[in-house]
Amino acid sequence: MNNPLDRIRIVLSHTSHPGNIGAAARAMKTMGLTQLYLVNPCADPDGVGRARSSNARDVLEGAVVCASLEEALEGTVLAAAMTARMRELAPPPQWARAAAPQMVAAAAHGPVALVFGNETAGLSNEEVALCRLPVMIPTNPAYSSLNLGAAVQVMCYELRLAALDPGRPPAPENPPATAEEIRHFYEHLEAAVTQSGFLDPAHPKRLMPRLRRLFDRIDLERDEVSLLRGMLKTFMKTGNKVD
Amino acid sequence: MNNPLDRIRIVLSHTSHPGNIGAAARAMKTMGLTQLYLVNPCADPDGVGRARSSNARDVLEGAVVCASLEEALEGTVLAAAMTARMRELAPPPQWARAAAPQMVAAAAHGPVALVFGNETAGLSNEEVALCRLPVMIPTNPAYSSLNLGAAVQVMCYELRLAALDPGRPPAPENPPATAEEIRHFYEHLEAAVTQSGFLDPAHPKRLMPRLRRLFDRIDLERDEVSLLRGMLKTFMKTGNKVD
Repeated sequence: MNNPLDRIRIVLSHTSHPGNIGAAARAMKTMGLTQLYLVNPCADPDGVGRARSSNARDVLEGAVVCASLEEALEGTVLAAAMTARMRELAPPPQWARAAAPQMVAAAAHGPVALVFGNETAGLSNEEVALCRLPVMIPTNPAYSSLNLGAAVQVMCYELRLAALDPGRPPAPENPPATAEEIRHFYEHLEAAVTQSGFLDPAHPKRLMPRLRRLFDRIDLERDEVSLLRGMLKTFMKTGNKVD
Repeated sequence: MNNPLDRIRIVLSHTSHPGNIGAAARAMKTMGLTQLYLVNPCADPDGVGRARSSNARDVLEGAVVCASLEEALEGTVLAAAMTARMRELAPPPQWARAAAPQMVAAAAHGPVALVFGNETAGLSNEEVALCRLPVMIPTNPAYSSLNLGAAVQVMCYELRLAALDPGRPPAPENPPATAEEIRHFYEHLEAAVTQSGFLDPAHPKRLMPRLRRLFDRIDLERDEVSLLRGMLKTFMKTGNKVD
């Protein structure tokens, strides 16, 4: 199967501010979504909308403008509706994190829509009724008003994580130290602290276990063990010996 | 312990656009965060910033303005740095979803900071080096440029979910049907389809199992069973009997 994100359309219904349409396009593209549908946008994306879309102008320019939500949902096998409040006769809503995998699973069978309402009024009950899956983003009950672009960002982020394993974050590949290298480091460390007098072999207390507990947490790399042992070597050369 | 979100500060370093500071304040407040620190903002939040903060003006007005990142990190037990790319000498980065619980856990011991860099340049290597935990948001490799306010929204969303169990989404509390009520419904349904001739008892095929498979998926509520049985009753009354 190709990328399920290609089959998930973001539908913005009756959006008032062109800047929010641009921000939504940018949010979509950062997460790999491209299908934007606009139902009766109160404003065409103007200069502000284009500015806020940044380099997602292609998503904005490819947007499908529809006269009704029914038209925007044509051909979909699942339509989800963002809602900030309970709707009496709608199905029980799902949190964003639970809804995203359901939408990705449905995208295996056909187009899926996620519908966002107007900035002030949200979706009408009639619009929610056209969708089978009401979705909510958990928010601060004292202030639940996400900006439209921000809500699109959160949902597209959840959809991306549900659709694609991000693997491990990019990091320099440094070979880890082997168990033997670590053992030699601790022997070296013990010799150094014994020579300096910091460790008294007659009264070792718990010095070495405490130092091990500290260095064990580091996941030392091979080069770092060399670095530390080089440092110990110069300490042992230049320091005074204890008799 | 009180709410860990009260001990997590969002630090914006060298932000260029006041609108983004306002959007960040709004994003924070929707997720229940309130501690905003601004390091050398290139612009004071002006009218645009205040407009985009919407009703999070209190977060914006309570912002602590600092001359350096060191100052903004004072007193923290953990500082995390948002980064969009690999940094050679930094610790291995964590994805947002893995980093959030670490930050929440650290907040039990003291203040925690999450640092966002300038819109164009991000954080400098020197700034990242002041933080122990580099954090990345998984993005579309072909276009990874999240808007600053959108990145703050995603991170505050992850922090909220890591800190607080959202419980179940608000939904009308309708009592579910009992097993007995469901059984009576199926008996009623079988009687109705038998009377109408849709089910031929001599050749039942797999009609009832298929109807059960369909209705079993609904999690029928008590009132809905009554509704369906009322409907069946009128079908049986008005329909013609099969002989």
